[in-house]
Amino acid sequence: MSGRLLSSLPGTELAAAFSRAIRLAQKGPRSANPRVGALLILPSGDTVEGWHRGAGTPHAEADALDRARAAGHDPRGGTMIVTLEPCAHSGRTPSCARGLIDAGVTACLFAHADPTERAGGGADLLRADGITALTWVDAVAHTDHASTPGDAAAAKSLTADAQRLNDRWMRAQAERRPFVTAKIAQTLDGFTAAPDGTSQWITSHEARAAGHRLRAHVDAIAVGTGTLIADDPRLSARTPAGDAAHQPLRVVIGQRPVPEGSAVIGADGRFVHLATRDLPAALTQLRREHGVEHLLIDGGPTLIGAALAADLIDDLWVHIEPTLLGAGRPSVLGLNPSTLTDRLDFDADAPEIHGTTVTIHARPRPAAPQADTAGTPDRKDV
Amino acid sequence: MSGRLLSSLPGTELAAAFSRAIRLAQKGPRSANPRVGALLILPSGDTVEGWHRGAGTPHAEADALDRARAAGHDPRGGTMIVTLEPCAHSGRTPSCARGLIDAGVTACLFAHADPTERAGGGADLLRADGITALTWVDAVAHTDHASTPGDAAAAKSLTADAQRLNDRWMRAQAERRPFVTAKIAQTLDGFTAAPDGTSQWITSHEARAAGHRLRAHVDAIAVGTGTLIADDPRLSARTPAGDAAHQPLRVVIGQRPVPEGSAVIGADGRFVHLATRDLPAALTQLRREHGVEHLLIDGGPTLIGAALAADLIDDLWVHIEPTLLGAGRPSVLGLNPSTLTDRLDFDADAPEIHGTTVTIHARPRPAAPQADTAGTPDRKDV
Repeated sequence: MSGRLLSSLPGTELAAAFSRAIRLAQKGPRSANPRVGALLILPSGDTVEGWHRGAGTPHAEADALDRARAAGHDPRGGTMIVTLEPCAHSGRTPSCARGLIDAGVTACLFAHADPTERAGGGADLLRADGITALTWVDAVAHTDHASTPGDAAAAKSLTADAQRLNDRWMRAQAERRPFVTAKIAQTLDGFTAAPDGTSQWITSHEARAAGHRLRAHVDAIAVGTGTLIADDPRLSARTPAGDAAHQPLRVVIGQRPVPEGSAVIGADGRFVHLATRDLPAALTQLRREHGVEHLLIDGGPTLIGAALAADLIDDLWVHIEPTLLGAGRPSVLGLNPSTLTDRLDFDADAPEIHGTTVTIHARPRPAAPQADTAGTPDRKDV
Repeated sequence: MSGRLLSSLPGTELAAAFSRAIRLAQKGPRSANPRVGALLILPSGDTVEGWHRGAGTPHAEADALDRARAAGHDPRGGTMIVTLEPCAHSGRTPSCARGLIDAGVTACLFAHADPTERAGGGADLLRADGITALTWVDAVAHTDHASTPGDAAAAKSLTADAQRLNDRWMRAQAERRPFVTAKIAQTLDGFTAAPDGTSQWITSHEARAAGHRLRAHVDAIAVGTGTLIADDPRLSARTPAGDAAHQPLRVVIGQRPVPEGSAVIGADGRFVHLATRDLPAALTQLRREHGVEHLLIDGGPTLIGAALAADLIDDLWVHIEPTLLGAGRPSVLGLNPSTLTDRLDFDADAPEIHGTTVTIHARPRPAAPQADTAGTPDRKDV
């Protein structure tokens, strides 16, 4: 049943290809679109790499096929190794399953199924066309040579790695809610505004511009009613030349009324007030009724705290200005830690610099034992 | 009176050399030792660069002379251009003025005088030996060709740049107090400990090691009595192999008594309790009575806040862990801002990464008009 490559490649070479696909996926940006990497192995033995570069750009499989053709390779008879099941649907980009069929690949090995109703089912499409479509674990089990226990374990471990690439995206899909990005702009000591509420220029012009670029690629921006009343934000995405082409849905979450004449209401009808404190329900409603797949929570501390407490923040941007206030509006409210282990840990990318601002892009760290506390001394070691 | 070079070099070429010396100085680390750059112009027209790499390493002039000799150049007849008056005293390194005399340079042009009693007076030593020793401003005025107003203005502006290299060091000298570095280890949201006081492992092992490397090159470490009582710190400098060779003086500042048996007291007599709330007086006393030229304030929020409020922090390291607490012991206490313009701004270097920790090295920004607020909109622009 398997293609030429499956019979010729030993499991360890497959594992190397899976591992490479994961590294390619990691090149992509972390956001509401899953990170996906692909490695096309041609009958000649040549390989072509592809990965997804974010919303609106070619998917990893299409990227690999495009590059193969650009390099003069014929993809026919090739094996596509990819970290996520090829999508069945046509959205901003054509269906990847259809693309693989049209390209004449013989086999597609994917780490795990696409969990979304909309995009899932690509493997079935491929099989219906006579193409071998197997998960990595199944592929190693089906290679013609005697697969060793090590091969199976490696495939399982690499599959877990591939799932971890998009764990937060998968959780959002499972919870039928948007992928949630939160943005904080604060001082070094964690304040988003001075005691009198002034906050306009905490971060640099460049950091604020980065914030607007983020706004211009989300489906909706939400703030809490406290921020609405304190700041009267417009919640628009702006460029140096004016409003961005794509304007997200403007959302206010919270039970207090939206004052008449608030800037957020606008004139285009793209405004929603969700008068609830049930944040999971509000998010599900945003997705179901308004098609919001990527939500940006842009403040304030109460809404961000509630989302953190409910483990609903998938992605966090913190813009830190090298300035100290000493008091003011804190960046997060409503968490009730008693001791240090109550903290919420994140994995951060290398910091970005925007003008004078240091920007940390972080995602919740999956729970894991704290290696470092194993050697806790009996007295505070300072 | 001036050497060969002064008569042959037009003012604009001198300005280029001054500018280069400043850029060389900027290569050095910012700490309690002044950053100094030097450019040795040889009679052949060749130039050799030097700069100071921090406490205990050759001064900029010695570095340039060493490199000249290493490259087979004879420094005799050369002109040394340096950002700070060559030191007169022999400390951890020999007197630079003596070094220039021994090397046979003909002229030394320095941006500004050394303000310290200990090291000042180098120019007089040079002149006593018949060497031309002029400030940059005087040098441009004394070049044999007709100096244009532009040359004088450039020399003045570059002199100001050279002074800015070490503005905080010069202030500490003028105030006869140690250069003060402060270190904060905190969460993203600005907490140094959880509500129950736990804080041992907020930052990564690597960041804590960097903290100990900093301890190992300061003359003294101070904490406030609150931190003393909460944490019972040892205030020692430690390496993975045990205590560092250099142990700083251990200092507690504050009016509360030091509890008997506190770890900070130690057995070596290198402990001082300054039972005062007058921080400037305490710092002056540390320098005068204990020879402390570089003090590290390693917590807590009250002492750091008091030092910030008194503009006594020259250099700030903030280790930021990508974790959120939501409440706890804040990194700074005792500032009383009312509005955003009450903030304390810093200039930060590119962030360093220590394990999972993002480290920001910042110094107080000299007061300057806020360009960005010129266009403040009449409504908060969010």
